[in-house]
Amino acid sequence: MPDNAKEEQQLERLVFFSDAVFAIAITLLALDVRAPAAPPGSYSAGQLADLILGLWPKYLSYVISFLVIGLYWMAHHRYFGQIRRYDSRLIWLNLLFLMGIAFIPYPTSMLGEYGTAAQPTVTLYAAVLAATGLLALAIWRYASHDRRLTDPDLSEATVRAYSLRAGLAVLVFLSSIVIAVFNPMLAAFSWALVAFTRPLANLAYRGADGPRDTAD
Amino acid sequence: MPDNAKEEQQLERLVFFSDAVFAIAITLLALDVRAPAAPPGSYSAGQLADLILGLWPKYLSYVISFLVIGLYWMAHHRYFGQIRRYDSRLIWLNLLFLMGIAFIPYPTSMLGEYGTAAQPTVTLYAAVLAATGLLALAIWRYASHDRRLTDPDLSEATVRAYSLRAGLAVLVFLSSIVIAVFNPMLAAFSWALVAFTRPLANLAYRGADGPRDTAD
Amino acid sequence: MPDNAKEEQQLERLVFFSDAVFAIAITLLALDVRAPAAPPGSYSAGQLADLILGLWPKYLSYVISFLVIGLYWMAHHRYFGQIRRYDSRLIWLNLLFLMGIAFIPYPTSMLGEYGTAAQPTVTLYAAVLAATGLLALAIWRYASHDRRLTDPDLSEATVRAYSLRAGLAVLVFLSSIVIAVFNPMLAAFSWALVAFTRPLANLAYRGADGPRDTAD
Amino acid sequence: MPDNAKEEQQLERLVFFSDAVFAIAITLLALDVRAPAAPPGSYSAGQLADLILGLWPKYLSYVISFLVIGLYWMAHHRYFGQIRRYDSRLIWLNLLFLMGIAFIPYPTSMLGEYGTAAQPTVTLYAAVLAATGLLALAIWRYASHDRRLTDPDLSEATVRAYSLRAGLAVLVFLSSIVIAVFNPMLAAFSWALVAFTRPLANLAYRGADGPRDTAD
Repeated sequence: MPDNAKEEQQLERLVFFSDAVFAIAITLLALDVRAPAAPPGSYSAGQLADLILGLWPKYLSYVISFLVIGLYWMAHHRYFGQIRRYDSRLIWLNLLFLMGIAFIPYPTSMLGEYGTAAQPTVTLYAAVLAATGLLALAIWRYASHDRRLTDPDLSEATVRAYSLRAGLAVLVFLSSIVIAVFNPMLAAFSWALVAFTRPLANLAYRGADGPRDTAD
Repeated sequence: MPDNAKEEQQLERLVFFSDAVFAIAITLLALDVRAPAAPPGSYSAGQLADLILGLWPKYLSYVISFLVIGLYWMAHHRYFGQIRRYDSRLIWLNLLFLMGIAFIPYPTSMLGEYGTAAQPTVTLYAAVLAATGLLALAIWRYASHDRRLTDPDLSEATVRAYSLRAGLAVLVFLSSIVIAVFNPMLAAFSWALVAFTRPLANLAYRGADGPRDTAD
Repeated sequence: MPDNAKEEQQLERLVFFSDAVFAIAITLLALDVRAPAAPPGSYSAGQLADLILGLWPKYLSYVISFLVIGLYWMAHHRYFGQIRRYDSRLIWLNLLFLMGIAFIPYPTSMLGEYGTAAQPTVTLYAAVLAATGLLALAIWRYASHDRRLTDPDLSEATVRAYSLRAGLAVLVFLSSIVIAVFNPMLAAFSWALVAFTRPLANLAYRGADGPRDTAD
Repeated sequence: MPDNAKEEQQLERLVFFSDAVFAIAITLLALDVRAPAAPPGSYSAGQLADLILGLWPKYLSYVISFLVIGLYWMAHHRYFGQIRRYDSRLIWLNLLFLMGIAFIPYPTSMLGEYGTAAQPTVTLYAAVLAATGLLALAIWRYASHDRRLTDPDLSEATVRAYSLRAGLAVLVFLSSIVIAVFNPMLAAFSWALVAFTRPLANLAYRGADGPRDTAD
């Protein structure tokens, strides 16, 4: 195998390892959606239905975190679709980013346990997500600066559009920490704004690189 | 690496990520098969045997969910055996589908904890499986419509046979919700009908595309 | 991509999915090695040391199950090193085999909780391992019969050597169920005989296929 | 597929399996970062904030273990970037090494539960990490000896630099066991010295093989 192919394989291994961490973190979220154990027969059908419906804060925090980790995975997928080489700093940045991703089940479980109405849990969640988003941004800035590790033909518009999307996500989570001082519930709602980072970035760098860049 | 190879690799990464979620969800099922912790020596051999045998509802729900997730994995494997390209909508549909797959351990644990004789747990289980099946169907319909993302030479018979199988599975789970109103246990038994979706679809579109299509 | 390459990729996906299940099952084993939670400061250093050392049955069952799952992974690795095609029956056999692999953490936790001196836990463990081994044997027999799915040039000696190894492992676990009636501890010790299945099979089919076949 | 390609694929499978174990072990670390379950509404915002902040020993042990497993993953990545073949001994050494990696969440949870000030937990942690490091060293020594399984053109300087790094990490953990006799907290701090194994090894074998070898 030529050295070039080996390097490509080593990069793939980095991506693979990251994907596995994403997949595990996203799947572990459901581990916190559990009813308390009970002796069989001790619940009537009505009580059981109440028990199932009463877990809605856990369903909600599952859905929120699944979507958020999914969005971060899509960003990672976008970045490494353009990255062609790696160095030890990229590995470290990626590891720190994954440390954030793998941590998300914890603030999610706090959210599911104590609800979105409590300031400390909302702040914790937003802080972890903002820090993780910052690390995503750092990966992209580092790799794309002077096309250090990416395809040399990568357009400036794409570089900026990706940075803008990551930056806006960080902004949403940081802002929600401020909002949570006044209204934690509203802060949690504000996270939905993350969904608008893509159309906003597309608007700013319209048609940047054609269909490939807007693929996800 | 040519752009084409890179795109193929990105699609592989999507498939890989999905496989990892499937594998984790299917393996986590066994985490709920646990006896309560006990101080050593506190049980006689006879009591211990009773304890092990008494966990049969957990074994049963483990087997059911393992087979169901396995069937959904096989459907995903079939679809992506024909899919050649991806776009942002496919990524989203796939993510929502995986949200269903990763959620399955929860209704499974409810089934194992409260048995198949209780209407609420049977309904919960069937509803999650039906929703997940609908998303599988949506992935296939979206990708195969006008051969949007699949091999252009894919036969109409294959497209329809795959849709029929997914549709029948959804139908089985939706029907079981109705059956559960009258008899939850019978509803749970009716899930076994999922095993007949393949021969039925094969019957309807006999010999569609030759050996490759019936590979799984 | 030619059809042939696509089929190969689909087979790879099957292998990959299996590897992920193996990896998760083997890593989840450590989840049961946990000390009970305690308020900080409530233990002296001596008590803490006792607590750590007192968990030895859990360490032991972790090591046993890690090695056993590792051996089964190596068998799977061997088989799929020779398998070139797949069909729907192979997928099903493989799924049933993985159902056994993913289940192993449960009898392992019983062994760690109730020790190797209790007949029911030793029997449970041996039964699960024997069933899983039988499914491994079934995969190999099915795939290698008339070289149905393997390399057509595969030697008969290799086919038989692999079958013999799987068969001997099943025999060890089945025998230990009988031994456990008289002496559970001895039955657990007898599992170590699995380590001798390889030299025995090598002895029976000496030099079968040269270095490649004895690689693992 | 030629035999050579098949062998390469089998080696990839070994690497892949290892990566999955690493990814799961590193992600499971966060499972121990959990607040005790509580009925909703029973905590004021202030109490909830205290609860979150009070978990700092768990955050700390999460970060330490994430970095340590990350470092071991990087070493594994380095080794297998040079390894071209495998044999049954490599598979066994790798399996034993992974047994150490998958075990790390347990001493980590003890550290998070009982703090870094208790000698037994610090000793347990250092012992597990030292043993795992020794196995990493064994993998590398075995594979690189006479270039048994590596690229034949691999320079002696690289072989030694990698060995030195692994050896120094083992030394750090072994020394900390001695330090813990006098001051467990200081022993825990001393683990940070692992970060200096890379510059030290680079210093000793300066510019060994050019940019490729120092990639991570």
